[in-house]
Order: sequence, then C-alpha cells, then structure tokens
Amino acid sequence: MIKITFPDGNVREYKEGTTGLEIAKSISEGLARKVLAAKVNGQVWDATRPIYNDASLNLLTWDDKDGKLTFWHSSAHLMAEAVESLYPGVKFWVGPAIDNPQGFYYDMDLGDRKLTEEDLAALEKKMNELAKQNNSYVRKEMPKAEALKYFADKGDEYKLELLNNLTDGEITFYTQGNFTDLCRGPHIPSTAPIKAIKLTTIAGAYWKGDSNNKQLTRVYGVTFPSQKELDEYLQLLEEAKKRDHRKLGKELGIFTMDDDVGPGLPLWMPNGTIIIEELERLAKETEQAAGYKRVVTPHIAKESMYLTSGHLPYYQDSMYPPMELEGQKYYLKAMNCPHHHKIFGAEPRSYKELPLRLAEYGTCYRYEQSGELFGLMRVRCLHMNDAHIYCTREQFADEFRAVNEMYQKYFKIFGIDKYVMRLSLHEPTKLGQKYVNEPELWKETEEMVRQVLIESNIPYVEIPDEAAFYGPKIDVQIWSVIGREFTLATNQVDFAQGRRFKLEYTNKENSAETPLIIHRAPLGTHERFIGFLLEHYAGKFPVWLAPVQVKILPISDKFLPYANSVLESLKNADIRGEVDDRNEKIGKKIRDTELMKVPYMLVVGEKEMNENKVAIRRQGKGDVGTKSLEEFINEAKAEIKERRGE
Amino acid sequence: MIKITFPDGNVREYKEGTTGLEIAKSISEGLARKVLAAKVNGQVWDATRPIYNDASLNLLTWDDKDGKLTFWHSSAHLMAEAVESLYPGVKFWVGPAIDNPQGFYYDMDLGDRKLTEEDLAALEKKMNELAKQNNSYVRKEMPKAEALKYFADKGDEYKLELLNNLTDGEITFYTQGNFTDLCRGPHIPSTAPIKAIKLTTIAGAYWKGDSNNKQLTRVYGVTFPSQKELDEYLQLLEEAKKRDHRKLGKELGIFTMDDDVGPGLPLWMPNGTIIIEELERLAKETEQAAGYKRVVTPHIAKESMYLTSGHLPYYQDSMYPPMELEGQKYYLKAMNCPHHHKIFGAEPRSYKELPLRLAEYGTCYRYEQSGELFGLMRVRCLHMNDAHIYCTREQFADEFRAVNEMYQKYFKIFGIDKYVMRLSLHEPTKLGQKYVNEPELWKETEEMVRQVLIESNIPYVEIPDEAAFYGPKIDVQIWSVIGREFTLATNQVDFAQGRRFKLEYTNKENSAETPLIIHRAPLGTHERFIGFLLEHYAGKFPVWLAPVQVKILPISDKFLPYANSVLESLKNADIRGEVDDRNEKIGKKIRDTELMKVPYMLVVGEKEMNENKVAIRRQGKGDVGTKSLEEFINEAKAEIKERRGE
Repeated sequence: MIKITFPDGNVREYKEGTTGLEIAKSISEGLARKVLAAKVNGQVWDATRPIYNDASLNLLTWDDKDGKLTFWHSSAHLMAEAVESLYPGVKFWVGPAIDNPQGFYYDMDLGDRKLTEEDLAALEKKMNELAKQNNSYVRKEMPKAEALKYFADKGDEYKLELLNNLTDGEITFYTQGNFTDLCRGPHIPSTAPIKAIKLTTIAGAYWKGDSNNKQLTRVYGVTFPSQKELDEYLQLLEEAKKRDHRKLGKELGIFTMDDDVGPGLPLWMPNGTIIIEELERLAKETEQAAGYKRVVTPHIAKESMYLTSGHLPYYQDSMYPPMELEGQKYYLKAMNCPHHHKIFGAEPRSYKELPLRLAEYGTCYRYEQSGELFGLMRVRCLHMNDAHIYCTREQFADEFRAVNEMYQKYFKIFGIDKYVMRLSLHEPTKLGQKYVNEPELWKETEEMVRQVLIESNIPYVEIPDEAAFYGPKIDVQIWSVIGREFTLATNQVDFAQGRRFKLEYTNKENSAETPLIIHRAPLGTHERFIGFLLEHYAGKFPVWLAPVQVKILPISDKFLPYANSVLESLKNADIRGEVDDRNEKIGKKIRDTELMKVPYMLVVGEKEMNENKVAIRRQGKGDVGTKSLEEFINEAKAEIKERRGE
Repeated sequence: MIKITFPDGNVREYKEGTTGLEIAKSISEGLARKVLAAKVNGQVWDATRPIYNDASLNLLTWDDKDGKLTFWHSSAHLMAEAVESLYPGVKFWVGPAIDNPQGFYYDMDLGDRKLTEEDLAALEKKMNELAKQNNSYVRKEMPKAEALKYFADKGDEYKLELLNNLTDGEITFYTQGNFTDLCRGPHIPSTAPIKAIKLTTIAGAYWKGDSNNKQLTRVYGVTFPSQKELDEYLQLLEEAKKRDHRKLGKELGIFTMDDDVGPGLPLWMPNGTIIIEELERLAKETEQAAGYKRVVTPHIAKESMYLTSGHLPYYQDSMYPPMELEGQKYYLKAMNCPHHHKIFGAEPRSYKELPLRLAEYGTCYRYEQSGELFGLMRVRCLHMNDAHIYCTREQFADEFRAVNEMYQKYFKIFGIDKYVMRLSLHEPTKLGQKYVNEPELWKETEEMVRQVLIESNIPYVEIPDEAAFYGPKIDVQIWSVIGREFTLATNQVDFAQGRRFKLEYTNKENSAETPLIIHRAPLGTHERFIGFLLEHYAGKFPVWLAPVQVKILPISDKFLPYANSVLESLKNADIRGEVDDRNEKIGKKIRDTELMKVPYMLVVGEKEMNENKVAIRRQGKGDVGTKSLEEFINEAKAEIKERRGE
C-alpha cells in the first residue's frame, strides 16, 4: 500500500500502482470525468500513469492552469493526427500548449503545400471526427537508440534533431488512434473531452527560429470542453481584437519593433515614453513616500555573480548567452536582485538601517523562444519597477503588508476591480531538494503572509508546491475590463539569497544576522503593464497618462494666434497640449483627434478668443460646455494631479 | 621637390626626403627646439622621419596633445632603459602614454622582485642621467620573420605574443642609448627635452588583464620639459588628491565597484542615484522646454544594425563581444544613434515634423582595456543624456546654435568658468577615404558651425583633420575650479548616417530628402560628469544636488519630536532632510554632518521648539542665524528651484 496526501492535508492509503484517475473514481465518478491530469509530488503526470510510492497528489481539471495546458497539448497531438491523415508524408517539429494566446500550435514541414482557410476548416472537421472516436493517449517508453533507429528509418530529420538533444536513457512516445509522437507528455486520458475546436491562425516559422533555416508551417488552435466555452472565448477574442495592444500601440505611436534590433525588443516611441515616464513618476512618488531609496546598477555582471545567486545553472535557459571578455564571461542581467544585494553588502549595515528598501527602474533581459514572443506581453527586454526590502523577522509582516497595500493603491488608480493573489506554498516533503531546508522559517513566513492577506481582506487562493525555492510568494492575477486575465506583479519572501550573498547586519546584541529579503514589483514589467493598459482603456488613457492631454482646435487660421497662446498657458501649467494648425474643417479636426483618443479638445473661435474662453469637448462624450481658460486649466490640473480615472 | 601644406593653408616646396624637423628649422631655430613630433597627412610621425610625397604637415610641440603623448611615450622607453640597466633580465610587456592620469606606464616582468619607493627614486635618478646623454630615438624597420627570430633567441615570450598579433610585413623597432624596443612609434627626436621626471605609482597588473595570468609590475610616471611644470603638476595632484572622486565617492556613499559585477561597471548607491536623478531632471526640463521628445530603446541590437551604421567593423574594438542567439549575433549598444535612427525611420516623416529632436537617457557599454579604467572617469558603462536632432539644411544653423547655448546654460549652472570648444574639421585631401565625399556639404557645415561659434562669442580652437567621418564636430574642454582639464560633451554634424539608414522625409515639393543629423550630449556621460562634479565641488554639492539637503540636529532627545515635525515639514516641501537622532553631544553631531558635507544644518532646542524656529548652520560657514521654520523652508525651496550655485 502507498500513502497519498491530498492538497487539504488528508492522507489515504491505496494499492501500489494505482493511477490518479482510479483515485479520482474512488472519490466520485463526477470528479473522474473531469480529471485531465494529476500532479504527483509537484510534477504533472498522465492521470492514467501508475503511482508506486507515497506521494502528494493534486487532481487537475479544466479549472487548473496545468489541466488546461495538458488539454491543449493533447489537442495539438489531435491536430497532428488530422494533418497526417489529410496530408500523408508531413513531418512534425514541435507542438506545445501555450498560454498567450491560449491554446496550442504545431510547427510542421508540409513540403511545398501552402495551407488556406479552407484547409483549416477541413482539419477542424477531421479533428472533430477523431475526437469522437474517444481514443486513449497511450504512453510508451523506448531506449534512445531504438528511437533513433525508428526515426532514421522514417527519414524524419526533425525528430532526429530533437532526439539528439535529449540525454540518453528512456525516451517516451505517445499514441492516440493512428498517430504516434515523440513526446515528454503528459496527456489527458482520451480524446473524448475535446468537444469544441477552433483553428485560428496559419503562420510561417523558421526552423529553430533561425531565418537561415527552412520555413515551417505553424498552425495555431484552441479547444474547449464545450461549445459554450469556445463561443465565449471567441467573443472575448473579438472584443480583444479591437483593443489589441499591438494595433493600438502602432496607431497611437506607443512602440515599434524592428528587425535589425531584434525580436522581443520594443523601441518606445515618444508617446509610449510619456506613459513610461508617468508610470515611473507614480512609482517613484509612491516609493519615496514609503521610505524607499533608489539605486542604479549596470545591465551586466560576471559569471561569478550568477553562480553565487544560483541563476547559473538554474535559470540559464532564460538568460542571454554570455559575452567573453578578457577571459571572463559576462551575462546580461535577467533580474535586478543580485546587483541590489551587492549594494546592501557594499557597506557594514546595522539594524538601525533596517528595513532598507532599495528600488530601481531596472531593465532586464530574458531569453524567450521566438515562438513565445507576443507584442508587449512576452518580450525579451523588461523594464521593472523593482525593489528589494531587507528587514528583520520582526519587521517582516509590516513590510509585507505595506507592499500589498501599495498593490491595492495601484489597482484603485488603474480601475482594476477584479484581482486575486495566488499564495504559492512549499511542499514539506521536498525540503532540502526543491526548497531551502528551513522548516520553521517556511511555517512562520507562510503563516505571516496568510495572516496579512486575511487581515487586509485581500482575495487569495493557496497554491501548494509552487513557492520559489527561497520562500513563499504571491503572484497577482488581474482582469482587464473585458474580462481577460493577466498575471502581473510578484511579492516574494526570500530567506536564501541573503545567505548565498553573505549579507549581514549587526543586530541589537551586536552580533551578525542575515536579513530577510522581500522581492516586489507591483506594476510587473512596463511592457506587460502598458500592454494591459492599452487593452484595459482601449487606448483611451485617463488624462494623467495620455500622451497628448489637450488638443487645441482653432476653427480657422484666424484663431491660430489665440490657439498658440492657449498652448503656452497649458505648457506653463505642465499640461501636454498640441495645436491642430492644419488648414482643415473643424469637423475633420475633431474626428482626427477622436481617433488619436486625446481626452480633451478645446475648440477656439471668435467668441472664445474675445472672452478668453475655451469650448471643451471630452473624448467620447462630445461637447461639455464653455469655460474660462483659467477655470479649465485649474480643473485639468487637479484631474491630472489626482490621477483620476475619469 | 614636394609640396608641404601648413595648417594655415600656406604651401611651400621642399626637397623630397625632408623631415619635419628640417622644415621646422627652415622656419626658425626656436620652433625646431620645441618640435616633438610631426603630424603628416593626419598621422603622427617622428619629426625625424623623411617625407617623400606631397603632404599636409602640422608640427607638434608640448602645446599639442599629440606632442605631449609622444613625449610621454618616449619617456616610457627612457624608463625601460633605466629599468633594464638596474635590473638586467627584466622582460617588458606594453608601455603606452596615457591621458588620465597624465604620463605613461610600463608593464614588466621583474621575476620575484617587488619594487619599493626607494627603487623608484633610484630609477628616477638613472632616468635623469640617461636623459642628459641626449640620445636620439632611432627608428628601424625589420621583416616580421627576422623580428620573431630575434625575440625567440632572447626567450622573450611577451614580445613574441605582441609580434604574433601583428600582420606580416615590416615591423618597426626604436632604439635610444642601450635600449631597443619593438614599437610602432612615433617618438621625440632625442632624450634631451625630458628635463623633469616623477615616477608616481607601483601597481600590479595581470598580463592581458586576465586574472588567470601572471601578475606583472606596472610603474606609472610623468615627465615634463621643465621642473617648474612638474612642480605645478604635482601641486595640482596634491589638491586633486583631496578632491579625488574615488575617495569622495566612497565617503559620501555615491558609488561602489564590485569584483563580481566587473571592472568599469559602477553600482550607484542611494546618494549617487539622487545626484543622477537631479541631473536627469535638469536635462529633461531643459530639453522639454527646447522641444525635445523622449524615447526609450533597448541596450542590444543585432549585428545587421551595426553593419548598417558602420560600427562594425570600424568601432568593433570598443564594443563588447557578441552574444550568439538563434544563429544571430547581438551586441550591447556602444552608442544610441542607430536605435534613434530606427525610431525616426519607423514612420513616414514630413518636413512639418522637422526639426525632430529625440532624446534618451541611454546607457551604453564600451570596452576599455582594464588598464585604462579609472574610477568614474574611464568606465565601461556610460549613462548619456543623449539626443539626435533630425533637421533640414535650412534649420541646421539655428539648431546647432541652440545646442551650444544649452551647453552654456549648463556651464553657468555648474559654475564652469573656463571652457573651450574644439572644432574638428575635415582634411580635403582625404575626401572619400577618411571623410564622406561631400566637399560642398563639408564646406557649408564647417562654415555654419564656425559662424555660430563666432556669433555666440564662444571661445574655440580649430583642429584640422580630426572631424568624424560623417561631419565636423565640436568637443568641449572644461576646467574644474582647481584647473584640471576634462573633455566633456560633444556636438556633431552628421550627413552620412541618414543615408546609411535610408532616413527620409517628404519636403515641401513632395519629394524625398535625407535629413541632417546633429548628435549631442551636453553633460557627456553621467559617470564622468559626476566624477568631475565631485572634484569641482570637493564633494560640497550645491543644495539642489546634495543627497541630504538639510540635517536636523536636536540638542537632546527631548527635542526629537520637534525635530521630526521639522523633518515632516521639509518632506512636504520636497526638501531632502534627515534627523540625527543619535544620543550624541551637539558638537559631535555638527562635526559628523560637516564631514558628510550636508549644506544646511538646523539645530533645534528649547527656544527653537517654543517659537517654531530653527537655528541655521551653513556648510563651511557656521552659524548663519535663526529663522522661522517657514522662512527657512521658503528660502531653501527657492535656492533649490533656481539651482543656485551658492
């Protein structure tokens, strides 16, 4: 018999070799029908894979992110089966589940064939047929040598390439129906739950992301357990398309991408830079009031720094490759923490200096596969309003609470009504392996964090076995006004890095102690946050964030001098204005300004000039009356200063 | 006969094979005595080297930077001769002239011998002896194979390494007295002008800057044509030592360096970051008023970008090595221009948008040899208040003038009384080689720049044959209050990059035209400028720049609550304050605050508390009277707002 520990802490005994699915059945048939995969000791497994040892178990359904991803991964295999049956001889590269956009894709070599929209419809039809056959996904292990021979015989250079990159030993294959693929898994039990299918996009993708290689065909798709869910999703997509941050980003002059700079590396145009600088100002003001100190650190460091931090080798795959200089390797920083730790360590520290809160608008660089890049949402260059708080154990709860309150303050400013904090906890059986071996500190800090969330009345969910290796953490999920979900900021406890970097302060008893560290970035990265805001506001930024806050529209050239004097007055009041000095009809001027989503338009003609007034139009609302210039300026200034949402 | 063109445009004929020194003699014996080297067609040559073809000629003396550097390079050989005569068997690595600190060094392998201060004195004595022998520096060419054999026979692995890195063909050697060295030259005619010698420092230097290699001995020295000049220099050094930016930078918590981050990569501590942010604010305000738009660009770009710009291969030695990713090479940016050009090119542009001024606080990375690195003065990570102005030819003079005026505005704010602009011009005989082949544009823009300088009454000197390849440029030399020279900002005309990047705007006639580009960075790099300011102010920053502007000193714990309420009032007025809450005597509090060079101290006790007043002490001036808190705050706010020097 083996002992199975459930997420609520309950332990039950089962026969050795029982599967997750069987355990689900032992609880209820209803649950079993919903099970897509099983998390065993923190690893996602096939729900049909036997468990031979004591383990923690979390049964994954459509409500779990890993459940969804498994579902989509299996859907990718289903699509491949349909492709192979319609286009025999196709060769496949990789076909992962993805998070943004939701669903999956598969890269394939179709020879000279170019897919069309009609082909996608035929493929969907085929997939529906195959799904209804309710074929099981069957896992099989094979020695690497045998697998190599199998693909060599088939003449499949793609799978051979994948295989060559795997370590020796057992390789796994998955088969459903007539399709077999080299695959690490896991998969859902069978094809039946795949009830609603939409293939969304055909794209080209260079093999291994290298433009010197052959271009493969990439088909994106998404699947759901019911037609209703698919319909809702497509409707959401439709609304999201209008608010697409890439489209708005181009129209409003926010950012641009350039082939010679590189993928995932946005260039911020003047309008985008204004938004960045307003967000920076907000963060700097907020942090200054909260007692943070600012620092500036380089974007690179030697290999030795990242060996100390543990980024090498654990985070290496997400880092840019090194630069070799004078016999040393230098890396672009993927995180700001090591540099901040060095600043903490640069001087002898006393408990009187704690909490020491070091903040930086750091720019980090992370390697994401080209296929994963997506507008501002997934980039390789990340601006973070980052900070690290060094404190004693006694100070910890207050500091952590203050950080959460800062998050809530931001949510209010940006009109983010729906959010959830995900509290990721450690798994006690993995102390010393996946987690720092400090059972008491784990218990203590997790309980402190939990209490802070409860006392502050913050909605949260607990996620077992997903903490950072150095301590519990909070990820924040927010929803835009159209209900799309974004994962934003992070607030993490760290009791490991301090020791790795030998950081110390002298306590009241005059002995050396290691500080606790809080990592926090309430706005996450500027890239993702501005992408979120573009969708959230549909480009109609509140006045304080708007690149152009006021557009002055003279009804004819005669009033250009007055328009320019209004502009001057706005400038003196630190309001960003522009004059539309084109020789156009006022109707066209208004329409064009609406398109650029400028919050205020001031129409000026004879009457306004003579009375030193302005006729005010509000974006989306039309005429809102005439006021003296002074009155308008005072009201706009207050609206900007208070960062009013509208 | 050959034609020699002088800097003033005069042309004279001389016998083929005449040397620069002979030409100097033909003008005057006095000049000949002062000549140290000759610039022939823009290249620095031995003054004793025969000229066989028509050429431009600039005779270099101690007043020319290249004259000084040649003098110091020859002094390095003189030191090597002295070293060899005192320590036979010594092997030499490299021995360049350097600019900062002024003088030269030589790296040498002395086996197990450690040099002492006494050894330096002995070496100086020996050098003086050798200098008086008035030995000529004699140039000799030798085929590379022969040179290799020569050093192989000597068993000199260092010179063999140097030789192996040279291309095949003729190698040059220089001999003076008993010393011969592999050397590209040039050198001064003989040792006699070296009249005053000071060896300043003994240091260790890893061979090739790599800590895995053997440590060599590096001796720094400086020489002058007279004892008087050496004395003045040593006195300046003495004063500069008190103001050493590295010493002050540490004491005042401005910056730190860390081995794990890497050489030349400063980490900015909270106090340094405050100064950076104040300088940024100044530049942003100034540039906003002047109609600049801000952008933000990544720190890396693909190889293709730098092939277009020409940084590769021409600037490659000053760049970090590439990172290889997905079959592409990525480089850290050494300059912001290419990224800005991409932003200009991201949208179709009309003449109505010009002048377009794109500004960024960009961080660039440049490779400098470890031996060249020096505190904040020579670094590898450079923050620049950079901007590029895209304009028409008609707009050029106004734009260039406005930039110069911005420089002068900054000089006034920072109390920089002495400055000179160095106008670097092209050399007409090198059009199409060293310089873009646009004879008319060169003439036109050089004349425009000259006129701007004359009209604006700016002191300037003209430097022939030192323009950038894309246009004439201005470098700015400034002097700190103790008379030390710094090369700061740059203001450059560029008529080549626009074409290389295919930048275009539509002119009034609706046809495509390439804009002129001005590159400008009035404060240069933050690193060097803050280093300069530390020396210039001896760490006693004016109030607007001071990290802590006001320190509140309660005369006992009893007045701590009042001190804290004063601090709160300062905070509300955006004044950076701190309370000295230590249980110390007031005298000690004042002394410690003086050491930290805080501009204002507010002493508060019974009387101040009761009357809501503060007793004010000014840094370096002592007691300056008692005022109401409100009055003090208003005065300090005005002083900060106006960025008063004092």
